[in-house]
Amino acid sequence: MRILSVESSAKAASVALSEDGRLISQYFSASQLTHSKTLLKMAEDMLSNQELSMQDIDAVAVAIGPGSFTGVRIGVAAAKGLCWGADKPAIGVSTLEAMAYQGIDRAGSVICACMDARRSEIYNALFETDGENLVRLCEDRAVPIDIIVEEAKKSKKNYFFLGDGAKLCYNRFSEEGIPCAIAPEPMLLQTAWGVSRAAIGKQAEDAQDLTPRYLRLSQAERERNERLRRENKNTED
Amino acid sequence: MRILSVESSAKAASVALSEDGRLISQYFSASQLTHSKTLLKMAEDMLSNQELSMQDIDAVAVAIGPGSFTGVRIGVAAAKGLCWGADKPAIGVSTLEAMAYQGIDRAGSVICACMDARRSEIYNALFETDGENLVRLCEDRAVPIDIIVEEAKKSKKNYFFLGDGAKLCYNRFSEEGIPCAIAPEPMLLQTAWGVSRAAIGKQAEDAQDLTPRYLRLSQAERERNERLRRENKNTED
Repeated sequence: MRILSVESSAKAASVALSEDGRLISQYFSASQLTHSKTLLKMAEDMLSNQELSMQDIDAVAVAIGPGSFTGVRIGVAAAKGLCWGADKPAIGVSTLEAMAYQGIDRAGSVICACMDARRSEIYNALFETDGENLVRLCEDRAVPIDIIVEEAKKSKKNYFFLGDGAKLCYNRFSEEGIPCAIAPEPMLLQTAWGVSRAAIGKQAEDAQDLTPRYLRLSQAERERNERLRRENKNTED
Repeated sequence: MRILSVESSAKAASVALSEDGRLISQYFSASQLTHSKTLLKMAEDMLSNQELSMQDIDAVAVAIGPGSFTGVRIGVAAAKGLCWGADKPAIGVSTLEAMAYQGIDRAGSVICACMDARRSEIYNALFETDGENLVRLCEDRAVPIDIIVEEAKKSKKNYFFLGDGAKLCYNRFSEEGIPCAIAPEPMLLQTAWGVSRAAIGKQAEDAQDLTPRYLRLSQAERERNERLRRENKNTED
């Protein structure tokens, strides 16, 4: 099965091509340019450099969140666009699960996928591994870093951090004297390789049914809710 | 300092762009297409997608061997070509040292960079790390796997394998009961990221002075020497 995968849920973006689980090509970019400008171009360049077109692809896999609202939307829209033109199905995967595959060789540790969710929270999920497969220990969640620290103290296990929130967690764990390690640079941030790995064994669906999974309300929604709450309060007064 | 790096010393090929040591973009391909067809196109696509040209690059770094004779030659020729047009200097680095940076977080282990050199030999170099820098334990060499096994038995240290010869070594060490680990898939093969990492702190030189470092004679040279040896023998007879 040939999968084209797309990852743009944070500041970096990447696309990858895999065949029966083996990585054929990956194109990663952590520039300051917006994903809407670079992502589809990267996918097109990569396919054309492999002398392939969308007709040669069996499914498009994409990280559907959690992550940056804009980034996740661009990724899901790009995946829909790629599928739509060639009538291909899509596979949506958790950004945190995709990232965790980059720690797949860390048997014995808790793999802690961490994205900086701002407002003192971390998008987080925990996994264990036997070196080849992941076992999920909790659902994707947005939690204060204190929760992760308290759980780690109870578990007495080594934590292995991945993601753009890894450094935050690593520093905090180190202050508390909890044993932990952080992924080296080229494995730190989520990649389309992780997305293709997380897609293995998952059912492909109609691309038009792909839906971002944000875990929290966007800033615009929060502000709207807050305004409505104030207006209701004023009406009641 | 902005470095464009090129790696094509084995079956996979990659290009990367880094700025003061930070990875900006990487484009990796392990397809069946020949590097002479894909490598320069990947570099051009990557620069153009970053809205950069060769004029914006400070130096080109390239893996100069050991490795596949054809692959190394294509990489060095591509680096020379890129430099020549834009009058930029080049930095040649050891393929094995570049690869070893992908194990930079394995403090406590011996990082064992291994390429399958065929004819029962491994292109190999050994390193130790404090988590941030590499300390080289031996020069790049072509050795039978038995030598690596014997050294490991004496050193009593854990070995961490990288490269397309990693599996060979890992299997052999496991048979002998020597503690070891192997890099997970996306870190297993050498990449242009490793090349850019190995280039840091090295002096850039005139690109026309770049020379491949093969460690062994090519098959054509071996066959020629063998023929000459036979002809001389016949003349003497």
